[in-house]
Amino acid sequence: MLIGNYLIKAIQEAGARHVFGIQGDYVLHFYDQLHKSDLTLINTCDEQGAGFAADAYARMSGFGVVCVTYGVGGLKLANSTAQAFAERSPVLVISGAPGMSERSGDALLHHKVRSFETQRNVFREMTAATAALTDAQSAAAEIDRVIDAVMTTKRPGYLELPRDMVSRETDVPPKNTPKDKQDTSKVLNEALKEVLSMLRAAKRPIAVAGIDIHRFGLQRLFLDFLERSGLPFVTGILGKGVIAESHPQFVGVYAGAMSPDDVRNMVENADFILAAGLLITDLSTGMFTTGTLNPGKAVVACPDSLCVRHHIYPGLGMADVLKALCAKLSATPPKTKWTPKNAPAPFVPQTGCKVTMESLIACVNSLLDDHTSVIAEPGDPLFGGLDLFIQGASDFMSPAYYASLGFAVPGAVGVSLAAPDRRVIALVGDGSFQMTGMEISTAARCGLAPIVLVLNNGGYGTFRSMIDGPFNDLCPWQYADLPRVIGFGKGYTATNEEELWRALHAAKNNGDELAVIDVKLDKYDISPRLRRLTEQLKKRVIR
Amino acid sequence: MLIGNYLIKAIQEAGARHVFGIQGDYVLHFYDQLHKSDLTLINTCDEQGAGFAADAYARMSGFGVVCVTYGVGGLKLANSTAQAFAERSPVLVISGAPGMSERSGDALLHHKVRSFETQRNVFREMTAATAALTDAQSAAAEIDRVIDAVMTTKRPGYLELPRDMVSRETDVPPKNTPKDKQDTSKVLNEALKEVLSMLRAAKRPIAVAGIDIHRFGLQRLFLDFLERSGLPFVTGILGKGVIAESHPQFVGVYAGAMSPDDVRNMVENADFILAAGLLITDLSTGMFTTGTLNPGKAVVACPDSLCVRHHIYPGLGMADVLKALCAKLSATPPKTKWTPKNAPAPFVPQTGCKVTMESLIACVNSLLDDHTSVIAEPGDPLFGGLDLFIQGASDFMSPAYYASLGFAVPGAVGVSLAAPDRRVIALVGDGSFQMTGMEISTAARCGLAPIVLVLNNGGYGTFRSMIDGPFNDLCPWQYADLPRVIGFGKGYTATNEEELWRALHAAKNNGDELAVIDVKLDKYDISPRLRRLTEQLKKRVIR
Ligand SMILES: Cc1ncc(C[n+]2csc(CCOP(=O)(O)OP(=O)(O)O)c2C)c(N)n1
Ligand SMILES: Cc1ncc(C[n+]2csc(CCOP(=O)(O)OP(=O)(O)O)c2C)c(N)n1
Repeated sequence: MLIGNYLIKAIQEAGARHVFGIQGDYVLHFYDQLHKSDLTLINTCDEQGAGFAADAYARMSGFGVVCVTYGVGGLKLANSTAQAFAERSPVLVISGAPGMSERSGDALLHHKVRSFETQRNVFREMTAATAALTDAQSAAAEIDRVIDAVMTTKRPGYLELPRDMVSRETDVPPKNTPKDKQDTSKVLNEALKEVLSMLRAAKRPIAVAGIDIHRFGLQRLFLDFLERSGLPFVTGILGKGVIAESHPQFVGVYAGAMSPDDVRNMVENADFILAAGLLITDLSTGMFTTGTLNPGKAVVACPDSLCVRHHIYPGLGMADVLKALCAKLSATPPKTKWTPKNAPAPFVPQTGCKVTMESLIACVNSLLDDHTSVIAEPGDPLFGGLDLFIQGASDFMSPAYYASLGFAVPGAVGVSLAAPDRRVIALVGDGSFQMTGMEISTAARCGLAPIVLVLNNGGYGTFRSMIDGPFNDLCPWQYADLPRVIGFGKGYTATNEEELWRALHAAKNNGDELAVIDVKLDKYDISPRLRRLTEQLKKRVIR
Repeated sequence: MLIGNYLIKAIQEAGARHVFGIQGDYVLHFYDQLHKSDLTLINTCDEQGAGFAADAYARMSGFGVVCVTYGVGGLKLANSTAQAFAERSPVLVISGAPGMSERSGDALLHHKVRSFETQRNVFREMTAATAALTDAQSAAAEIDRVIDAVMTTKRPGYLELPRDMVSRETDVPPKNTPKDKQDTSKVLNEALKEVLSMLRAAKRPIAVAGIDIHRFGLQRLFLDFLERSGLPFVTGILGKGVIAESHPQFVGVYAGAMSPDDVRNMVENADFILAAGLLITDLSTGMFTTGTLNPGKAVVACPDSLCVRHHIYPGLGMADVLKALCAKLSATPPKTKWTPKNAPAPFVPQTGCKVTMESLIACVNSLLDDHTSVIAEPGDPLFGGLDLFIQGASDFMSPAYYASLGFAVPGAVGVSLAAPDRRVIALVGDGSFQMTGMEISTAARCGLAPIVLVLNNGGYGTFRSMIDGPFNDLCPWQYADLPRVIGFGKGYTATNEEELWRALHAAKNNGDELAVIDVKLDKYDISPRLRRLTEQLKKRVIR
């Protein structure tokens, strides 16, 4: 089979239907093959946008692919790939490369940095596996190896495809027979005994759902565990929405000092915590403000180990642990009391009231249902957005750990393509919008209709309460004019609650129309959560 | 002295007056110091834009600085830094980083990828020197070491500044006493004898001026050599304009099969070639189509060696070689005949004639003088732009080797700040403009007035004649509306020669006004040079 065709087949088998990127001469021949295949090519404005779109697509659908040219394309993906690594998003990066027959000596071929190894070395730092397909015979096996690593670790992988290898024959490797799993039953029994006795002795137990429950597709299993154990649960910030927030056992989003008091008390006073798939990061703990997961009381199930209090059972996967727990539990009545989260009251816009972060979130809340999907940029879109009430599982997405700005608009393209039944609502700061917001142009090319809310507070609001200066200001854009510039969709401006309400409803009702809503906020208005976070963060910024 | 203050002082001593970037909490404290210093902070829309702006600024002024936050900021600079490395642009990259006191164990701090080494490892691949300022005492010496490497090699350097080190005291190192230079006089004498005897024997000698003449500030010396030797000269494509093209000995820009016939004949029939500071790349030789620099006839002076025919004199710098040659030569009458390049005839727009790449270049030509500076994006802006007649030295800039798109608009910001006496004319493909063109917003913030010509052929024109497909198309934007979106400057649309002529003159005459001119070109119209290049390139793309 030809290497290019084998790669296309492997991508399809891994579950992607779209490939994001921008071509160049080193990848043009493969682009032509892609174009003629059943995969759909999505050209973004900039490679950065392609990287973010593929990341969002991967988070939503389980596998994403970005394909670019050598150097100029590949290296523009360093940041988005780093984000996918840090937050476990299964993205395959494919880069074209100079042909093997062109590489005589140290030829200065365009797009080359230092040596033919440079780009791969960069990607080694931020992927689970890399391969340069420089040998035809083994190319197919190498493709399998890298994609396997992506699927197993849920982290990015990197493939470099020299242009003169695309049409070379490769040996199709025998189908991978799944490796015999090591027998961990003894370890599991020992661990289980401990966990169950802790759980039974606990008076105020609680569960925490982390993002990796979603990455490893364990939502159903975790739900089963919740329902059998009767535990109330919170999510981390990266894991917000992994289980629908309308679930009666849902307590709230926990983020250390950033949390509402009831949620905080419940977690910090718990005498047993079972956390699954949780990343314990500075932002998710309000800058480690609290004894979140008092290790003496916690059981943390990770993708490939189980931590019980201060000791570790290596090799115990989350799935096995949850399954074993479920087998031992049945319909335990809850011991802890909590106030279930009710759907927020319908938003009633006040005449003449200026929009604030709080009213904005309340207003968006009244729009959400289980056919909407929210994507929030880091900064106040994320922190304020933690108070949204997410009704469908996995319908909130934000890079809440690595926190790269510029994700949300290209991400909205990725999500819209991965989940065509969802209407995507992107919450984007004006600062972030100025980075990659023009990727609405990609939405236009694909006929996608996300609702983009530009949270326009005239700058980098997140920092104003830490250290303010002209470096926090932005050139004011007429965001609502941009749909006209790209010839697609509709622009709105909203200064007061009524305008926002009307714009949002118009946008929602017009399901095929991309909308850009310029929401004018006060320069100093930030959400209560962000206010609490910045108080902590400020101490680290100035010392 | 405080580390932050020492760094600011070192930047100023190296010659920069501006620092480009976007802050984040890991670099906020240093931003505040920068803001309070005599350096001017330039906030771009995206870090990518800051990287390109600093690169252009460095090319124009000899030293450029970009300063960003950790991870999300730093890794967005991988591509622009790679370009600065490949094309020798002295850029200092400064990245904030988590404080040393925050790094307990393997803490998951936001913006961290894999380890605290990841980002520095990435930059090792594309810089001449890197340092992480993790030790207060040695920090100043480390700063000196990295900036020295940047200045000596004209390649980027990388400094990582943990946020809690900014205000720590460092030991100010003694001023570097310049190293005693090795005595190379014997080597030089031997080499000189050879070169001079080749030169004297030659009947059709020619000189080639490469980009590194500019990077190492040797224009005057090279001019002196030209005038003493009487040699006609060409430039490479990356070196276009290093010597003003109005010089009577100037023959043209040589680029292998891409060159006009007279230039090509002259170079390829020469029996002696003296090239200084030249990068011999695939693009600069029309894909190695020719025996450009028949090594048997060539002397190539590089920054730190001299190649004479097939042997190398290591350690001989360009400057020493040129100086020694000058000392031996005086006002040699030219042996070769050539037609000096005349200033192009004034452009007379034809009524109703659609703009083509050829008429566009002719029209721009009639606008250039020694107060204009052209910056051309890779693709046809570069290849077509090779026929511009550049009247001031170093008034043409293009990343003609590494060739990353997205350079020109942020680059125009960098050049406008580095050389405030120049009016910058940016030639930008529509594809490139969609990558980073919104950095006109940065020009707006700084009150800069580049003239941005969007060469709007509805897509990636460079590829249409190789392999065409929908992946070469773009969403059509109303480029001329963008000045209104950012509230600064003026937009023009030009379909025929008269409209273009009028728009260009209006823009030129209005010296304070940023202009965006949407030049509508036919989808398949490409410059003659690009046509010749793609014929060669196509063979490598499809095989
Ligand atoms: C790519 C990138 N650059 C810089 C930062 C640092 N940063 C965090 S929040 C922020 C401000 C974002 O401004 P905006 O998008 O307008 O949102 P707001 O803070 O006003 O809510 C910045 C620059 C980042 N997270 N990512
Ligand atoms: C960052 C980057 N991505 C991709 C490429 C490959 N590439 C070279 S030319 C080109 C087309 C550029 O289109 P445009 O800017 O409209 O100029 P045109 O080809 O029409 O002259 C592309 C995508 C590149 N050089 N740089």
